Amino acid sequence: MNMFLGIDIGGTYTKAGLLDRDGNILAFAETDTPKTGGVQAEIASISEILDFFEEPLENVKAIGVGIPGPVDYKGVVFSPPNLNHWGKVDLGRLLSEFFHFPAQNIIVGNDANFAGLAEYKFGNGAQQDPMIMITLGTGVGGAIIIDGEIFHGRNGFAGELGHIVLQPDGPRCGCGRRGCAESFLSHQGIVRIAWEILQKDKGSILWEMIGGEFELLTPKTIQEASNMGDPASCKILDKVSRFLGIFLADLINIFNPQRIVIGGGISKWGKPLIEPAEKVAKKQAMKHIAENVNIVRAKFYQKAGVIGAASAAMSVVDY
Amino acid sequence: MNMFLGIDIGGTYTKAGLLDRDGNILAFAETDTPKTGGVQAEIASISEILDFFEEPLENVKAIGVGIPGPVDYKGVVFSPPNLNHWGKVDLGRLLSEFFHFPAQNIIVGNDANFAGLAEYKFGNGAQQDPMIMITLGTGVGGAIIIDGEIFHGRNGFAGELGHIVLQPDGPRCGCGRRGCAESFLSHQGIVRIAWEILQKDKGSILWEMIGGEFELLTPKTIQEASNMGDPASCKILDKVSRFLGIFLADLINIFNPQRIVIGGGISKWGKPLIEPAEKVAKKQAMKHIAENVNIVRAKFYQKAGVIGAASAAMSVVDY
Repeated sequence: MNMFLGIDIGGTYTKAGLLDRDGNILAFAETDTPKTGGVQAEIASISEILDFFEEPLENVKAIGVGIPGPVDYKGVVFSPPNLNHWGKVDLGRLLSEFFHFPAQNIIVGNDANFAGLAEYKFGNGAQQDPMIMITLGTGVGGAIIIDGEIFHGRNGFAGELGHIVLQPDGPRCGCGRRGCAESFLSHQGIVRIAWEILQKDKGSILWEMIGGEFELLTPKTIQEASNMGDPASCKILDKVSRFLGIFLADLINIFNPQRIVIGGGISKWGKPLIEPAEKVAKKQAMKHIAENVNIVRAKFYQKAGVIGAASAAMSVVDY
Repeated sequence: MNMFLGIDIGGTYTKAGLLDRDGNILAFAETDTPKTGGVQAEIASISEILDFFEEPLENVKAIGVGIPGPVDYKGVVFSPPNLNHWGKVDLGRLLSEFFHFPAQNIIVGNDANFAGLAEYKFGNGAQQDPMIMITLGTGVGGAIIIDGEIFHGRNGFAGELGHIVLQPDGPRCGCGRRGCAESFLSHQGIVRIAWEILQKDKGSILWEMIGGEFELLTPKTIQEASNMGDPASCKILDKVSRFLGIFLADLINIFNPQRIVIGGGISKWGKPLIEPAEKVAKKQAMKHIAENVNIVRAKFYQKAGVIGAASAAMSVVDY
């Protein structure tokens, strides 16, 4: 049988799945991502998952591996921030040697790009061209899908959409700049916006919900409080959706996309976040471009990385 | 002989040129763009230029026409702001009927896109991939050249790079948004920045140079005054180049381009504008992406539109 192996290496978990070419998941497993031991420890973890699958690799046509950081067009991984004990590694070559699997059937890439491909092939981006995906989570990732393929730019690094500036004197972003989309729309960015607004509203129900502990303030608590009509939380939501709207308007003017897919944990906030953002975007973007785009939530969440990596694997073999 | 006709319809002038396939200009002419009379008056002007060329259209393989506004992928022109007496017109079809020239060998497109193609084919973008062009002039235009072709997006409207927001509460842009790149980096945007700074420095030599008249304040005067070391003008240059740097950093993070070409009248300011902007850009963009880009000035200015339109014409015929 012709199966595709998708591996999603995250900062916390490593997930893997065997998929058929229609995108159905035939087997799935996850394990902790080793915090030490470099890439060798990671390969050992992957090997354990494959043992668990009890599926000989002869039945696998191609392997895709998604990484939470920059990967060049040759598959060389540039020390991802969350896997900084790795250094710069040619992961495809290492996997090929370890598993005796043909190197040309292994594709290593950025996880946000692969998640975009998953939405294009099997999810809510279904064959829309061009399709732009943004993922709002720990960071803000992006994928540019043109003619059904990931747009890589010169070296494989294109699509860092989370590092478009929305406000040049905004908060410091993890990348070093100020006011990137990520600095407002990531988990931490939203919490920062919330904390500022909360300082001016000591009567907000959020204070009670988090017991005064900054560490307990999360997009999910804010969402719950705004659903209850808490004014401070509605203000936070307003501000976040306005930034999201500005971000979307930029993407519309740049790409004239047929569809924008919004994924990542934060997007589960759903309509209350996305509808006002879409309104801002359609007002701010150029009218003749904005009227041709539609904006939807992602289909895949927990397994987006695995489905994406397997989707990328499908693209490396002819069939 | 196989020639290509490039027509550049601007708000003020209509320019046309006959080019060979190596990009050499064999004939060139320009005339005023009619202010009234709609597209029919424009076609009459073009016809006069062609009479002047005394070159039968049988010797022309293809015609390209650049427009200062949105053009969809079918060549339909959407009432450009500077040619608003036109309305929405299928310019390719009208030209084909008027000149009895095969419609499939006429290409109508956005002038900024065509200028980008000119730089890619014959100018300072020479075969770099991806190549991004920005033009700083009356407006701020953009072109995204991937694999040597203009990236059009869904409907032909992609590449409105001048309408990426650099500061969400910035000055109102012609497009309706606030704080677009165009609102800081166009002729008018720079003058606005300058005027603000001048209010606080009544001793600036610029006041003398413009005789106190706002209308005489231009990027060129500012450039001259900053060359003389005028502190206010140096401050203006600082601010403008910082915005340009932020803009370039966005483009680097989005596209991972091999080259960015900066054209349009403002770019003639040259090194004093572009070098500090490049410094800001390379500091703000992600390091692994920034180190792979090079940023250069355009080769073509007055004839960029004509060479671009002819370049686009070359792309519609096989040879």
